[in-house]
Amino acid sequence: MTKSNPTAPMFERIALIGIGLIGSSISHAARRAGVVGSIVGSARTPATLETAMRLGLIDQGFITAAEAAEDADLVILCTPVGLCGPIAKEISRHLKPGAILTDVGSVKAAIVRDVAPHVPDGVHFVPGHPIAGTEQSGPEAGFAELFDGRWCILTPEPHTDGAAVEKLKAFWEALGSKVEIMAPEHHDLVLAITSHVPHLIAYNIVNTAANLERVTDSEVIKFSAGGFRDFTRIAASDPVMWRDIFLNNKEAVLDMLGRFTEDLTALQRAIRFGEGETLHRLFTEARAVRRGIIEAGQDTPAPDFGRGAAATSPTDVK
Amino acid sequence: MTKSNPTAPMFERIALIGIGLIGSSISHAARRAGVVGSIVGSARTPATLETAMRLGLIDQGFITAAEAAEDADLVILCTPVGLCGPIAKEISRHLKPGAILTDVGSVKAAIVRDVAPHVPDGVHFVPGHPIAGTEQSGPEAGFAELFDGRWCILTPEPHTDGAAVEKLKAFWEALGSKVEIMAPEHHDLVLAITSHVPHLIAYNIVNTAANLERVTDSEVIKFSAGGFRDFTRIAASDPVMWRDIFLNNKEAVLDMLGRFTEDLTALQRAIRFGEGETLHRLFTEARAVRRGIIEAGQDTPAPDFGRGAAATSPTDVK
Repeated sequence: MTKSNPTAPMFERIALIGIGLIGSSISHAARRAGVVGSIVGSARTPATLETAMRLGLIDQGFITAAEAAEDADLVILCTPVGLCGPIAKEISRHLKPGAILTDVGSVKAAIVRDVAPHVPDGVHFVPGHPIAGTEQSGPEAGFAELFDGRWCILTPEPHTDGAAVEKLKAFWEALGSKVEIMAPEHHDLVLAITSHVPHLIAYNIVNTAANLERVTDSEVIKFSAGGFRDFTRIAASDPVMWRDIFLNNKEAVLDMLGRFTEDLTALQRAIRFGEGETLHRLFTEARAVRRGIIEAGQDTPAPDFGRGAAATSPTDVK
Repeated sequence: MTKSNPTAPMFERIALIGIGLIGSSISHAARRAGVVGSIVGSARTPATLETAMRLGLIDQGFITAAEAAEDADLVILCTPVGLCGPIAKEISRHLKPGAILTDVGSVKAAIVRDVAPHVPDGVHFVPGHPIAGTEQSGPEAGFAELFDGRWCILTPEPHTDGAAVEKLKAFWEALGSKVEIMAPEHHDLVLAITSHVPHLIAYNIVNTAANLERVTDSEVIKFSAGGFRDFTRIAASDPVMWRDIFLNNKEAVLDMLGRFTEDLTALQRAIRFGEGETLHRLFTEARAVRRGIIEAGQDTPAPDFGRGAAATSPTDVK
């Protein structure tokens, strides 16, 4: 298959460095779209590599990222954020001239800081972040629909080759995503409030509940259907991935956390002094944001009552 | 149909005072189980009453709670917590001797405080709370499966008639629930951490996000799939219901909120000082609680990625 062939794939060979939920979903979605020739990959453990081969996620697997990156037209770093710098350094001399190097990390300024210095001339580095996921991890957690209708943010630097940015944009669109370009620092601020702080408070309330003296863990679990359950789902996400996110988006997270605490303190005061009107107003305002998310197609109105939701909900029965 | 009839229903006539998500679900589940003769109900608005009649939720509808309670063997208060006291006072003289009076409120000590004084001799008051729900409201939101496998907590006082408690327990079990008996004060503490505080912080982060200067509302909505989305679902619950819960479980909520803030502050400090091991440990512990909830059947392991989840998830495809 040659580039002149009208059915030529966007990329002859892509390399997935790390094959977890996102890496495996990229493979499923890319094959579904038929936009890649071959997919190779590397994983830290032979077990993951074996699973990826068995599931057909990759055509060829390597233990070292350097080997996987060799000859690839598109190299996607799909590891926890903290590993991107070291891996970029490792693969640097193996990257093919003209290749595009990108990532899927949930922080972007730190990725530019850690990866950019290792990108050789002639290789186009375009940081990316598909805003999609589930609470599950590993090569078996991926599926082709993960990116459908979700946003993928690219944060190229001003001097980045425009054609490379356009090509990566087209790739993500082929995978089902909508693509937005923004500055790394703004991405980190937006994600701090839409993803990082929400995960932090989910992890936090789960641990608060698990460490109470007067309420047993079994009570917390038995009676979790009142709302707590949903937080535990968010708090089931990969601990290493999240540790790295918080270590690498410290300023924005602390900034947003400060706002959250300030607002929570005001809410706490309203409860203490029985200010019903204030509570009602704040709860009503929150509802409007929910409507916006459903209208934007980022969630369904199907009620969730905790069993894989919609399946038995009236919304679906109708 | 007479009591001697072996197929006699548990209750000849039940009255639903308030027909929202819970009231309508009780009707669906009770009819599914065939445990009631007739179901009557009252609602504050003619529109709700009309909808309830049209959906066949009630055989007869009344504008006043007093009329609905008349001759009922089981009267269930399904209104926001703040209305239970006034309604108990209104229906007091109309309650049939031997009838059971219960409620579905998410706070129990305040219900005992507000309702008990109006319960006439010969009427058995057994406060109750089915721990089940969705973020939706109103008579059209109910469905028969809502209580299946969920817990319903009853908080009778020591002097309450044992037979009445057993009968109400059997009723909830017929509706699909598992039943637990506990003291009102303990219920309120358990629910403060498993439901009330989770809802409060969900409402809070949604409003924090909606009031930022450097991140637009449209950005918050577009990029909500990173976790924020799930909080907006919880924050879509009925504002009046939740206002009343916080006004009536103040002490326990402030107590649990204090613990939450204390833990969040420690987590914030760990981020500020880059304590990766602490973060990793705390995130890993939270995962264990999630496993407990799935093992306890209070949620499914189906990954949720925001479209009524399971439907298109690999878990279901397999």
